[in-house]
Amino acid sequence: MTHPLLDTHRATLDGALNAIATRGYWTPYPEQASPKIYGEGASEAGKQAVVATFGQRFDLGQPGTVCWLASDRSPYGVEIGVQYAICEIEALLAAATQAMPAWQKLGIDGRAGVCLEILHRLNKASFEIAHAVMYTTGQGFGMAFQAGGPHAQDRGLEAVAYAYREMSFVPGEADWEKPQGKNPPLKMKKYFEIVGRGPALVIGCSTFPTWNTYPGLFAALATGNSVIVKPHPWSVLPAAISVRIARDVLRENGLDPNLVTLAVVDKPETTQQLATDPRVASIDYTGGSTFGRWLLEHARGKQIYAELAGVNNVVIESTDNYKGMLRNLAFTLSLYSGQMCTTTKALLVPAGGIDTDQGHKSFDEVAADLGAAIDRFLSDPATATAVLGAIQSPETLARIEEAPKAATVVLASKKLTHPEFPRAEVHTPVVLKADASNEPAYMQERFGPISTVVAVPGGSEALAALSERIVRDQGALTVGMYSIRPEFIETMTAATQRAGVALSINLASGVFVNQSAGFSDYHGTGANPAANASYTDSAFVANRFRVIQRRHHV
Amino acid sequence: MTHPLLDTHRATLDGALNAIATRGYWTPYPEQASPKIYGEGASEAGKQAVVATFGQRFDLGQPGTVCWLASDRSPYGVEIGVQYAICEIEALLAAATQAMPAWQKLGIDGRAGVCLEILHRLNKASFEIAHAVMYTTGQGFGMAFQAGGPHAQDRGLEAVAYAYREMSFVPGEADWEKPQGKNPPLKMKKYFEIVGRGPALVIGCSTFPTWNTYPGLFAALATGNSVIVKPHPWSVLPAAISVRIARDVLRENGLDPNLVTLAVVDKPETTQQLATDPRVASIDYTGGSTFGRWLLEHARGKQIYAELAGVNNVVIESTDNYKGMLRNLAFTLSLYSGQMCTTTKALLVPAGGIDTDQGHKSFDEVAADLGAAIDRFLSDPATATAVLGAIQSPETLARIEEAPKAATVVLASKKLTHPEFPRAEVHTPVVLKADASNEPAYMQERFGPISTVVAVPGGSEALAALSERIVRDQGALTVGMYSIRPEFIETMTAATQRAGVALSINLASGVFVNQSAGFSDYHGTGANPAANASYTDSAFVANRFRVIQRRHHV
Repeated sequence: MTHPLLDTHRATLDGALNAIATRGYWTPYPEQASPKIYGEGASEAGKQAVVATFGQRFDLGQPGTVCWLASDRSPYGVEIGVQYAICEIEALLAAATQAMPAWQKLGIDGRAGVCLEILHRLNKASFEIAHAVMYTTGQGFGMAFQAGGPHAQDRGLEAVAYAYREMSFVPGEADWEKPQGKNPPLKMKKYFEIVGRGPALVIGCSTFPTWNTYPGLFAALATGNSVIVKPHPWSVLPAAISVRIARDVLRENGLDPNLVTLAVVDKPETTQQLATDPRVASIDYTGGSTFGRWLLEHARGKQIYAELAGVNNVVIESTDNYKGMLRNLAFTLSLYSGQMCTTTKALLVPAGGIDTDQGHKSFDEVAADLGAAIDRFLSDPATATAVLGAIQSPETLARIEEAPKAATVVLASKKLTHPEFPRAEVHTPVVLKADASNEPAYMQERFGPISTVVAVPGGSEALAALSERIVRDQGALTVGMYSIRPEFIETMTAATQRAGVALSINLASGVFVNQSAGFSDYHGTGANPAANASYTDSAFVANRFRVIQRRHHV
Repeated sequence: MTHPLLDTHRATLDGALNAIATRGYWTPYPEQASPKIYGEGASEAGKQAVVATFGQRFDLGQPGTVCWLASDRSPYGVEIGVQYAICEIEALLAAATQAMPAWQKLGIDGRAGVCLEILHRLNKASFEIAHAVMYTTGQGFGMAFQAGGPHAQDRGLEAVAYAYREMSFVPGEADWEKPQGKNPPLKMKKYFEIVGRGPALVIGCSTFPTWNTYPGLFAALATGNSVIVKPHPWSVLPAAISVRIARDVLRENGLDPNLVTLAVVDKPETTQQLATDPRVASIDYTGGSTFGRWLLEHARGKQIYAELAGVNNVVIESTDNYKGMLRNLAFTLSLYSGQMCTTTKALLVPAGGIDTDQGHKSFDEVAADLGAAIDRFLSDPATATAVLGAIQSPETLARIEEAPKAATVVLASKKLTHPEFPRAEVHTPVVLKADASNEPAYMQERFGPISTVVAVPGGSEALAALSERIVRDQGALTVGMYSIRPEFIETMTAATQRAGVALSINLASGVFVNQSAGFSDYHGTGANPAANASYTDSAFVANRFRVIQRRHHV
């Protein structure tokens, strides 16, 4: 059963299996973009590898090429112009279907070994992927490296480990011997084969083209399925590099590279056609709620893992570290200009203010101090551009523009000039404040660097109730809270367990509510409207394969 | 964490955990209806307990009682007349929702302990349940005892074991410590709470009111959910007894009995209302494809585990045990008058006949010999009535009547008189034969004792191809095959793995294609239209709970 590539990467798999069982800190993929780890000149080489693709054809050698399309779009104003093959959907689906039987026959160990080798090679290419992520998403380089490289690889490995664990529970064969009293027992031999459900479609988002793609990609692959990766048209390059590496590894190991293909499309109808094709068995989707709901409505009978929009919120009831809290929130609201699915959108504060280690602070003071903390944090232009990155989409730019109409402005957005990229769209966050009764001001996701401090009358129970209602109605991937009162922490614990959302308590130093750590934090719960699945739990992998048995008498 | 009831039943749980990992023969619930095991007089006492309920109110003490309804229907012609409360849907749903938090707080061990105690008590009540199953479904007593009692309990326990194993992988808490180079590490404490998705609706079928209900019931319960059991109106009594026992155990352990309720309804619209209520998070359904498809269409966003109709088939390519094969098939086609979701409907035979240890047999000879084998097997009236049981529904009676119009009759159905129940609807199987080109004769499920021997031209590849197409298009829970040629066994292995159906090879003695053994045989695969889930695999339990985390700095 064993496979040379699994032997090579056995320590990585064992580490991951231990990590998902204990969920402490662990990673085999260092997050430091350091030459000591990744090699002298790796950063420059990665950048050059990416720049060399600009304006060129990125040929993956896929079947059914119809024409070539350049659709990447850089928030830094860089001309990317990489051309990708648009392949006939029929050719991709036929190839994906054809590639599956050999992949199934490779077995659990072989598939895990190949997945681990792909991840290893993705890790070696972290700088190349980081630059591709940075150019296409507008993330700052530090974030692009960490989230787009090692952290994304962590999530992919996590999915492989979960898949491996679940599949390993199914014995390859069994001897069944049923006593028959004084007669000889009935004896049977049974064999259990793990079979993937069918080609998987993994639809990426524009802001995290690897972090949100690898979990579905590797969960589907490891469980015996072929995968068609459909990246967002604006950030194809990181997905294309990832698919190229996967195809290289498959080819080198005598497997059909068409097990993993890239579907670049020039119109949404093509994605809809892919999603509703009877051969596609599962869909992983990260993105806007409109298309997500369309998928859930139309792609019937398929397993769909969807991460949609939400209104993440933080409840501020009291704190014994006012400055630490403000600094922590300022970073959260600034990081990648709030273009994370985990960024806080609403900050719920008692209308009567809060108790802090700096004395009582009125609601208006809390709002103003938060605005000031952001302003102070971003006062150094180098920090500001590194943390903020650039605004990814014109829609987000429009939302920043429109935001002041929704409520009272606490902190206005400013446009900054990027020292390296003069055409980059760099904008500081806008912070609003509103009464809880003004629900349109905060009871919807305004994706981007826009958040609202909400004045909530009626005591701490009302704070918890509003937070719970937001999660239930709008969905949320993250809820944070600040309180010095254990009983209120209990109240929020119960409220978030009812609403089905992860809770971060009194974060005031180097961990942020919008960050989730691979192998330890479950990203999303699947229990509220923001997502119907989690990175990564058993449910994320268990339904991607089936057990087909056969039996005969002995 | 541990719980007294889990301590009591620890050996049972450990045995089940070992059994699902090895899938050999195992059970804690003896299938012998023997006084040595179940106690002297247990059979008579069980019968009396059931008969005593006839014509009486079966009061479960549920909330929202509107009126009383007697809907059970006996294929043996016995007047049952047990009256069940029709409860307001709103009252049941409100009670189910209210009962969940305390059940969640009980934790994995507590919930498993309570489930094991319920199963233990169901086992003690096996004779009572067996008689209730027999009277309402028309099963013979022996089958009603085994399938309705211990085998159903096996499937319930199997679900508890899978749920326990999956939930046990989630650590209750974790210490997360991330190195920060020369700085002190970031340290966090994280807690992971398992939370059920919400009230589960378990919709039973008329023919196996316990065997097809316990897996969903116990999978949902163990994973932290309340359960509303909606039995088929014609076989309420076995479900009512089961729910009564569950409620007794809950009450005795200081838990809210409304965690498990019985929903007796007087119109299908009520079931539809239940199924589409936003509070219902999951639905387990066994039954006809029409309502199954309605559920999949309308109960959106809910986890649905559905077992629908299919066309199980057996491929007869050759055999070295012609008589054993015919005997085996005769039993399969006779058992409970073919009213099993696993009964063979189509028998595919080469048009040119088959090689056997009795020489070459033409297609017509095979068909005739199968008819004769059934006739011979049922020639003893005592055997016949015990094995056949009675026909459950008027629709099945009508299908028996209509069957001869579909193709050539090989064996006609006869009405038999039951020695104990003069009004029982006892009918022997009808066997038809048809050419493969006459698809309407066999390419649909005719539920009941109706099967078709199909003459397939074109060699053994054509046999395998037709079997595969039937499974892909119509669905199947079982495929059987007979062949002395290893290469054809390989062909069928590949075909059934592609189509996603379990394969039984050369069954000729005491194991039958329509039987699946708890802890060993996966019942259904979830990979073809007959069912979207399996009893029991990880996928059957993993999506019934969510992990809600909270974290704070240390």
